[in-house]
Amino acid sequence: MDYTDRETLVGLRRELHRVPEPAWCEFQTTARIVEACRAIGVDDLHVGRDVVDADARMAVPEDAELSKWRDRASAAGVDEVLLDEMAGGFTGAVAVLERGEGPTVGLRVDIDALHITESEADDHHPASEGFRSEHEGCMHACGHDGHATIGVGVLAAVAESDFEGTLKVVFQPAEERVGGGKAVAQSGHLDDVDSLYAVHLGLDHPTGEVVAGVGGFLAVSHLLAEFEGAGAHAGAHPEQGRNAVQAMATAVQNLYAIPRHDEGATRVNAGRAGGGTATNIIPEEAFVEGEVRGETTELMEYMKEKADRVVRSAAEMHECTVETHTEGEAPSAESDQSLVDVFSAVAGEHGGVDSLVERDALGGSEDATYLMQRVQETGGQACYVCVGTDHPGGHHTPTFDVDERSLAVGIDTLTDAVRRVASEQP
Amino acid sequence: MDYTDRETLVGLRRELHRVPEPAWCEFQTTARIVEACRAIGVDDLHVGRDVVDADARMAVPEDAELSKWRDRASAAGVDEVLLDEMAGGFTGAVAVLERGEGPTVGLRVDIDALHITESEADDHHPASEGFRSEHEGCMHACGHDGHATIGVGVLAAVAESDFEGTLKVVFQPAEERVGGGKAVAQSGHLDDVDSLYAVHLGLDHPTGEVVAGVGGFLAVSHLLAEFEGAGAHAGAHPEQGRNAVQAMATAVQNLYAIPRHDEGATRVNAGRAGGGTATNIIPEEAFVEGEVRGETTELMEYMKEKADRVVRSAAEMHECTVETHTEGEAPSAESDQSLVDVFSAVAGEHGGVDSLVERDALGGSEDATYLMQRVQETGGQACYVCVGTDHPGGHHTPTFDVDERSLAVGIDTLTDAVRRVASEQP
Amino acid sequence: MDYTDRETLVGLRRELHRVPEPAWCEFQTTARIVEACRAIGVDDLHVGRDVVDADARMAVPEDAELSKWRDRASAAGVDEVLLDEMAGGFTGAVAVLERGEGPTVGLRVDIDALHITESEADDHHPASEGFRSEHEGCMHACGHDGHATIGVGVLAAVAESDFEGTLKVVFQPAEERVGGGKAVAQSGHLDDVDSLYAVHLGLDHPTGEVVAGVGGFLAVSHLLAEFEGAGAHAGAHPEQGRNAVQAMATAVQNLYAIPRHDEGATRVNAGRAGGGTATNIIPEEAFVEGEVRGETTELMEYMKEKADRVVRSAAEMHECTVETHTEGEAPSAESDQSLVDVFSAVAGEHGGVDSLVERDALGGSEDATYLMQRVQETGGQACYVCVGTDHPGGHHTPTFDVDERSLAVGIDTLTDAVRRVASEQP
Amino acid sequence: MDYTDRETLVGLRRELHRVPEPAWCEFQTTARIVEACRAIGVDDLHVGRDVVDADARMAVPEDAELSKWRDRASAAGVDEVLLDEMAGGFTGAVAVLERGEGPTVGLRVDIDALHITESEADDHHPASEGFRSEHEGCMHACGHDGHATIGVGVLAAVAESDFEGTLKVVFQPAEERVGGGKAVAQSGHLDDVDSLYAVHLGLDHPTGEVVAGVGGFLAVSHLLAEFEGAGAHAGAHPEQGRNAVQAMATAVQNLYAIPRHDEGATRVNAGRAGGGTATNIIPEEAFVEGEVRGETTELMEYMKEKADRVVRSAAEMHECTVETHTEGEAPSAESDQSLVDVFSAVAGEHGGVDSLVERDALGGSEDATYLMQRVQETGGQACYVCVGTDHPGGHHTPTFDVDERSLAVGIDTLTDAVRRVASEQP
Repeated sequence: MDYTDRETLVGLRRELHRVPEPAWCEFQTTARIVEACRAIGVDDLHVGRDVVDADARMAVPEDAELSKWRDRASAAGVDEVLLDEMAGGFTGAVAVLERGEGPTVGLRVDIDALHITESEADDHHPASEGFRSEHEGCMHACGHDGHATIGVGVLAAVAESDFEGTLKVVFQPAEERVGGGKAVAQSGHLDDVDSLYAVHLGLDHPTGEVVAGVGGFLAVSHLLAEFEGAGAHAGAHPEQGRNAVQAMATAVQNLYAIPRHDEGATRVNAGRAGGGTATNIIPEEAFVEGEVRGETTELMEYMKEKADRVVRSAAEMHECTVETHTEGEAPSAESDQSLVDVFSAVAGEHGGVDSLVERDALGGSEDATYLMQRVQETGGQACYVCVGTDHPGGHHTPTFDVDERSLAVGIDTLTDAVRRVASEQP
Repeated sequence: MDYTDRETLVGLRRELHRVPEPAWCEFQTTARIVEACRAIGVDDLHVGRDVVDADARMAVPEDAELSKWRDRASAAGVDEVLLDEMAGGFTGAVAVLERGEGPTVGLRVDIDALHITESEADDHHPASEGFRSEHEGCMHACGHDGHATIGVGVLAAVAESDFEGTLKVVFQPAEERVGGGKAVAQSGHLDDVDSLYAVHLGLDHPTGEVVAGVGGFLAVSHLLAEFEGAGAHAGAHPEQGRNAVQAMATAVQNLYAIPRHDEGATRVNAGRAGGGTATNIIPEEAFVEGEVRGETTELMEYMKEKADRVVRSAAEMHECTVETHTEGEAPSAESDQSLVDVFSAVAGEHGGVDSLVERDALGGSEDATYLMQRVQETGGQACYVCVGTDHPGGHHTPTFDVDERSLAVGIDTLTDAVRRVASEQP
Repeated sequence: MDYTDRETLVGLRRELHRVPEPAWCEFQTTARIVEACRAIGVDDLHVGRDVVDADARMAVPEDAELSKWRDRASAAGVDEVLLDEMAGGFTGAVAVLERGEGPTVGLRVDIDALHITESEADDHHPASEGFRSEHEGCMHACGHDGHATIGVGVLAAVAESDFEGTLKVVFQPAEERVGGGKAVAQSGHLDDVDSLYAVHLGLDHPTGEVVAGVGGFLAVSHLLAEFEGAGAHAGAHPEQGRNAVQAMATAVQNLYAIPRHDEGATRVNAGRAGGGTATNIIPEEAFVEGEVRGETTELMEYMKEKADRVVRSAAEMHECTVETHTEGEAPSAESDQSLVDVFSAVAGEHGGVDSLVERDALGGSEDATYLMQRVQETGGQACYVCVGTDHPGGHHTPTFDVDERSLAVGIDTLTDAVRRVASEQP
Repeated sequence: MDYTDRETLVGLRRELHRVPEPAWCEFQTTARIVEACRAIGVDDLHVGRDVVDADARMAVPEDAELSKWRDRASAAGVDEVLLDEMAGGFTGAVAVLERGEGPTVGLRVDIDALHITESEADDHHPASEGFRSEHEGCMHACGHDGHATIGVGVLAAVAESDFEGTLKVVFQPAEERVGGGKAVAQSGHLDDVDSLYAVHLGLDHPTGEVVAGVGGFLAVSHLLAEFEGAGAHAGAHPEQGRNAVQAMATAVQNLYAIPRHDEGATRVNAGRAGGGTATNIIPEEAFVEGEVRGETTELMEYMKEKADRVVRSAAEMHECTVETHTEGEAPSAESDQSLVDVFSAVAGEHGGVDSLVERDALGGSEDATYLMQRVQETGGQACYVCVGTDHPGGHHTPTFDVDERSLAVGIDTLTDAVRRVASEQP
């Protein structure tokens, strides 16, 4: 297969779209990417435990969930040797192209899908064209199928170009849970990267528009607090209970009441909460699963510390114990001007780009920021670009889809940017 | 089959124990009872919609749940005509024995099981003897298999006796959810009953001990409050949400804070609560499923009115709507002394009774109280008796079991009480 | 003065009524009692620090408040030597009459007033008769002026009688704050008392009715929790505050939500709460002043422990410190039957008693229970009696008053009871 | 007196400092300003009800408080005719200088003081120099004594200059409570103003530094919510209470939990809260006095609407009624560039200015914004300037003081700005 061919790439995107897999369960997805990388002829290909710092992974599903997806991949014919390497949810890949002396340029794309049931409506393109999700209840509703395709496309195009230097394409798992970025950032693969691009499709920008430097990432941390008290019969012995639902409710009330901060925007949400088993039993167990955000990493840390105090005190108040886990996390980050300039320059020259936005704010969270931060801390530069795409439904909705013409825009501009960066650096 | 034979009756109890069914799903159970009543030769047998006031039923499961249990009964060979009569969860039966002039005496037993997984331990008698629940996750953990057997046994014994009058044995569904009592009470079947006994096994009294008059029922009401607000992205547009989990938490905090009452004990429990879908979405839906109790019906009503106000105000505070449903309810009740005296007298003469307690308090709730109240309001008398039984595990636990010797104690004493009441009344 | 003379005693009551003094500030009141005791000729008279265990006093006012009342007493001509003995709020007295061999009988009366402004209405007897409170904002609205008078009257009457034994009349300070009972109980004065009576006027019983044995005291504990956080400008630096009002509000919500108890009635009230200084300052300080009660001392202790946990956790949640103080406390108690019998017997013979109630429940709290408990623990017996009196306004209201005819009923019946107890004991 | 003389002006500031008066009680202060205006020879002088729209006044104290301050002013010798005009708290003044054809220029200064006890420390200049507050508990701790002086000084200087046009100096009452701005804005006095300056001393800028255009005002609204329920004896009849403290606590918890807003910063503070009378009484009354703020007026309105809903729902939850009052309010505002430019130009030429800051954000609230908004809405322009002053203690602290050298800087630069604006406009 020729991964510089547009039809082939559109086909790849549709193949990936059909088999969406959630965070750390991207077994088929990774296998398909590995197949493409080998076809392209990369010099080095890291898979399995070699992709991440195992201890830094967050939001890894229970074993039963991992097994379910692995079995599904196995049934779909994925090579068992590769599956063994990925056992325990070690999905994702880092593909390396070595083309002589020159800087190391990185490109980060993410590959996981969401727990959303895809639309079956006739006007939903994947449904009418026959590549709707085959994994009912799971869907590529944020364009990561396109991102993975762009990663492959850039790899193929750069491989055939006069590029001199090293290109690393990172196919990152578990972005949707902000669970994979930290583990990849700490893997070491980024430490010699001089320039890193990350890319996202859409974000309410139409096909033909690109943003050279996305910023305004809200730092985020996902928190799971599990309260454990003691059950008791609510009629006969109410005093013998230690009420986990009361602890949960006290926590929820006080989480939202964490003081606002003078230095910038903060957020808090107890997105899921629950507990108890029966009307007549004092609830023994309860939980809050939520998130805090901040305009800066410091503001997020402020919220996180306060949130932690709230759940601990709420537990203590109702004589419960509480275990808290960080389920996912991402810092804020900024795009470096030099890379913004390079991307602006190449995008300005590209026929498919009819609108160039230099800077825009995301207003959400993304764990590419871990990778960007790592590169910036080790002396490199990083930049997050957006490639517009007409999308009928919003991100994270059942009718989301990408305009496949934007794949070429993304591949071409990023390929040029990678080459330009390499040629301009000493 | 001879339902005055003890072996037969123990066999019946084990049969019922093997096929436990939850509230309003007692299809096989009812069918087995109907079979026994027909064998005994009752004069009238009410089943299906004839057992209850349809509108007064509470805690009826969703159609899917009803269908599941009906299908299971059908697969087990239950007569389809009878199943059609019970369609929609119209389980239970009222068996009538007419034996000439004389008072109408009632006996109420309940027949439903619990959502508990029965123990498989070797020292759990039903497991070792081979009559453990065949409906995994459902269990007769409160002795209603024994209660139904006592109902059948008393019917058979009275049928063969010199009893003059009318005997009505009510096999009531859905006691565990306090969902069936009101519907049976309003059916009209109780309106001509002069004397009503209700019976419970165990209650921490050992085999050989009986309680002639149980009182101290806590009136209870089960409440389901469903909050609906509006979702929104918690990072991008927190102000656009109307937070159902905040409403729920506010409700929980204030439910437990309903003022205590000078006139007697009250209870409140938010036994189950929850809401929300994802950490980054302002929760759109949430619920509280709980209960209030009172030492008297008035105290329960006081709590219920307050609880209703709390959930409505909590919804309003967070711009949510709320729907509340009464999922189950039972008043308090007292046993009439005349029937207590009769039962004391016959129990005192019974060889199997080595300890006679005149009065004891339940300290819990029970919807036999609806039937007792109905009889008392229409000029009759009512009495709730307890027949002790050694039970290794507590009520509502996986190792609960009854000492089958107590079945005969219950049948004999109640048969005698029924006959004595009839003979003593003009 | 002849304190067996009824006119004199009514005059004494009016004198005391004119100069009401709150807990631990009963300087004039004590001085007037001391004067009467000396006139009667008691054998021993304990005042000042000799009346109580100093460390066990609760609810002692600030020095400024104590000084204000002492100065007022000084201005009213109270002997400076006596005032010096009472310095620091050591009010109250124990008068001892020794009349040869015989048992030691005790009588406890309380002497403090309330922070209530007395009615000036024409139909308010103290106003129209010219003995309304001269201490504006303070009032004998619970009859302790009458209790003190009864104490003096019994002392005088017994002194003139054929009584053989020892009589101790305890004039206890600070009952209204349940602050004095414990300190008197631990003074040692009760340890040799064989039989103790305590007395209260009114309690909704009319003139001519007496209750021989009052019980049903709710054990009570008064709690003061003072939160300290950190102020900050609410607009400029909200995150720099540690919000004491949030801690207070969290505490209030959770105090009322302490689980009810199976073993009996409990109570909780955050009767006073507040904090903060200005709308634009994050509140630095806040407080909750409240109480918990229980049908038994154990139930009160259960509530107290829970309440303490609530305020500590609420403080911790909002990064505040909290200091908690027990401001007053009293256990529950029961009247011994033998003393109930004695009082019933003498009351039944008394012309002024036209209705004799053997037992009644108080339904409130009283720290005479400490003294009763002490006597019972050291082998004696104790009894709390009520002497009915027509009272136009309720206890603790501006129009409360006692029917002065009831003073004689109280003095006569208690004098007889003291004599009877002494004569009947070996 | 010559109010262009610096010594005289410093003397005036000290006079005003000695007699600080809170919002709407500035009787002596206004009288002293009136005296100065008359000495200068203004053409028109509005006092009393003529200064404001009476209905738009907020945070007016109770009559007793107004009387206290009026009596104090009367005792200090203030003219009774003027006091009568100001009766009911109609303090403040508008002085008008008409100097032929030309634009109308406005200058707004505020004149009220704070409820703070001034430092007596030796190193507190007003204390050591003998002009410390004579109104114990009240203090000019925000420089309004200086502002009033600047108003007088500019008036005198412009009067002696070649200025052509009309100058209006507004001496506004009640800024500290954001209670006076709206009433002055709606008086009509601003409607013909072409250019308005407002001025503040300090704000953490040192002597010699000025800010030409202050912005970033947080819109603010002060809220007073008064809850009324029903009292009851907490031991005897807890169910009879309708607990206002529970309503208050529920409100406080939920006020702080109002959702953050995507469009900018918001604030909320329950700065004062309290309720209840005694530990054993279910609280009948309680209150919350707080504020909400927003980066824009719309954001403040969002918070205000939510806060109102919270207090109403909290009242309803606990069966209380609630009355809410807006105690003070101010919108946000921006300084117009043309006036910023003029002030920058004249300040840049002034010898006393060694640091010129063009724009800075206040980060707090100020009701000069009402006046600015009014002028801008009626076609004029407005600008808020800051004149730096070394201040030992922070604003609103007992050791706040102004460096009197900054008075001249303020007077000179504003006089020049007024003249420049007039000369540059057609």
